[in-house]
Amino acid sequence: MKFDTYFTMNESEAATYASEKLAYLFADDFSLSCKEIGDGNLNYIFKVTDKRSNHSIIIKQSGPVARISDEFKLSPDRNRIEYEILKLQQQFAPGLVPKVYAYDPIMHCTVMDDLSDHQIMRRALMEFQTFPKFAQDISDFMVNTLLLTSDVVLEHKQKKDLVRNFINPQLCEITEDLVYTEPFNDNKNRNDVFELNRSWVSEHIYDSLPLRLETAKLKFEFMNHAQSLIHGDLHTGSIFVRQDSTKVIDPEFAFFGPIGYDVGNVIANLIFSWAHSDAHQQSDHKRWVEETLVATVDLFITKFSSVWDQKVTEVSALTPGFKEYYLSQVMSDSAGVTGLELCRRIIGLAHVKDITSLTGNIRLRAERICLTAAKEFILERGKYCCGLDFLQTFKKAEAAFAREDYV
Amino acid sequence: MKFDTYFTMNESEAATYASEKLAYLFADDFSLSCKEIGDGNLNYIFKVTDKRSNHSIIIKQSGPVARISDEFKLSPDRNRIEYEILKLQQQFAPGLVPKVYAYDPIMHCTVMDDLSDHQIMRRALMEFQTFPKFAQDISDFMVNTLLLTSDVVLEHKQKKDLVRNFINPQLCEITEDLVYTEPFNDNKNRNDVFELNRSWVSEHIYDSLPLRLETAKLKFEFMNHAQSLIHGDLHTGSIFVRQDSTKVIDPEFAFFGPIGYDVGNVIANLIFSWAHSDAHQQSDHKRWVEETLVATVDLFITKFSSVWDQKVTEVSALTPGFKEYYLSQVMSDSAGVTGLELCRRIIGLAHVKDITSLTGNIRLRAERICLTAAKEFILERGKYCCGLDFLQTFKKAEAAFAREDYV
Repeated sequence: MKFDTYFTMNESEAATYASEKLAYLFADDFSLSCKEIGDGNLNYIFKVTDKRSNHSIIIKQSGPVARISDEFKLSPDRNRIEYEILKLQQQFAPGLVPKVYAYDPIMHCTVMDDLSDHQIMRRALMEFQTFPKFAQDISDFMVNTLLLTSDVVLEHKQKKDLVRNFINPQLCEITEDLVYTEPFNDNKNRNDVFELNRSWVSEHIYDSLPLRLETAKLKFEFMNHAQSLIHGDLHTGSIFVRQDSTKVIDPEFAFFGPIGYDVGNVIANLIFSWAHSDAHQQSDHKRWVEETLVATVDLFITKFSSVWDQKVTEVSALTPGFKEYYLSQVMSDSAGVTGLELCRRIIGLAHVKDITSLTGNIRLRAERICLTAAKEFILERGKYCCGLDFLQTFKKAEAAFAREDYV
Repeated sequence: MKFDTYFTMNESEAATYASEKLAYLFADDFSLSCKEIGDGNLNYIFKVTDKRSNHSIIIKQSGPVARISDEFKLSPDRNRIEYEILKLQQQFAPGLVPKVYAYDPIMHCTVMDDLSDHQIMRRALMEFQTFPKFAQDISDFMVNTLLLTSDVVLEHKQKKDLVRNFINPQLCEITEDLVYTEPFNDNKNRNDVFELNRSWVSEHIYDSLPLRLETAKLKFEFMNHAQSLIHGDLHTGSIFVRQDSTKVIDPEFAFFGPIGYDVGNVIANLIFSWAHSDAHQQSDHKRWVEETLVATVDLFITKFSSVWDQKVTEVSALTPGFKEYYLSQVMSDSAGVTGLELCRRIIGLAHVKDITSLTGNIRLRAERICLTAAKEFILERGKYCCGLDFLQTFKKAEAAFAREDYV
């Protein structure tokens, strides 16, 4: 079979592809089977297994349109971006991304480690599992991939070459629309608001002029601030976990943007898990999420500062007071994005299971807690200095919607 | 003669080049002469004249190293950037840049209108000439080239493609070093401080920690804020003037950076002209410069707001209050850059004739006025809202160094 012209493969074609192109990844006497296991929006994920050795790999192929809606037409070149980013992330944060073996610019696919011995973090958290290494691992991942690709560390010309290489107009447009625009502008074609919260969202979100103004500022910050090579979609569905391991996947939204975009996504998605555990009255898990969230933020800050002290040689960045200024901007951006992600997953087109799996007044309350906290994160984003600051905002929102009033 | 391999031409070779490659720009019976007239740092400027018709054109060729110092090795690809920018600027600000006829990617040269009927603005101002159209023209140029290339106006994907196309690592590095770093870090190899001001500069500039911190913040803003396609070197040596015409040249430093970088360069270089006229007690010219500076800033603000109202359709940018926020950030950046340019031309490697043509205590005083104003522009950059705010800062500095104490 020839793979010299791009087409989207089915399972049997992906198995043929693996046996013809990737034989070197298997033992000599391999016998391959293949299953498409993708549940994301943009790509096809083929798990190819050698039935004899049980060894498996993943072939990730980019389709020409998003699976969620063919309204999003996307260049399959994002697969190149993903491959190159995974190589870079492996270099900056060894062991925290899947190993990649090959990239095929014709078929627009990347071949990487199968992570079937890990779970998708969102699902695992919804089963009230806990992951003791998570705060350590994700803070390592963020500090190393973000600080080390900024121009406080990289030679400036080299950094600009990377900026050019990772300009990502189509994927950024999705974020600009879905995260920064539609949730605050009553987009009737694409927003998807839970029925019991429609009038509340109108009054507290759509009609809030201060909120619209601050989100507009954050949008132009996202579009124009080429700070670091960010992952760009760092929610708990992009993280694979095991008790002893954390792997970040799916960096196809990556580009040079504000560091706080990644940090805020992690925080917001932990808050969704917290709201889910709260709804299910899983107080132990809820407490674990709270502790993990606080630890993630605090470890991020501590490690950021310590890696800065070790790695930064840029003469202006060494000016006394500059590190503290830089980090305070990162924390402000992180808080703003926490609020944006909380809003867009409840109001916008793309939801999260943590919330949509809830029903009736329990979902109503979970959403209102998240949205109330979100407004504070966005409007008062300059005040966040540590993990506890983040915790206090959603604990305060929780107190405002006492459980007994909704059950 | 063959021009199929790059070499830096001499006058006679440039004349041959014109007769072989550019015959279509001259009358049939042309007879060409050529003179190299460059006085910039980076390029060779050949004026090629048809002796019969007296019609002339300019061939601008990029050299492989800067003329000021072969320490700066530069890719001649900057010539492509300059050609493409001139085409874009012609589209956005018709009549305010020289017309370009051809670009040769092998010889790294661009062919354009000869502006010999114009004068270089810096020299003309040093002769106390005035240019009644300047404030109108330069504010038109800045508003149209800057606002219309930002993503409040351009479609976002198109803007990102332009950002990629105009990433300019080498020329940006020159600015980062010469403007943002060395003047504030006592760079003994490259700074060039007037002897009578050495200890004053040490005390008031090098030893000012707040100044170093604020300039570090501005440096990362310059490097990371891909706001608009800026000219990048908009001083009065890059502007050709006639009583009825203004032409901006030399955009080879262009890239997507903060709007305020261009605005601040214009303001600072008007202040140098003001200091020069002050030193020569040319009070009429001094007053004209003051009026022109105030008018330039105020026309920029008025036109920026009016072009915004006509052209902006971006939904988030239309949020009430966002235009005012955006413009206030631009003014703050402009004030900061005004201060940086004032400092770097007095302390750093590359000076301006307005100041270096002065001597003794007169130069001492001119420099102290500029540097004192510069500190206020940088440290209090958030307070500048109109032309008068800028004027007051250097009038206040002037008052602090009363003429009679120095003559």
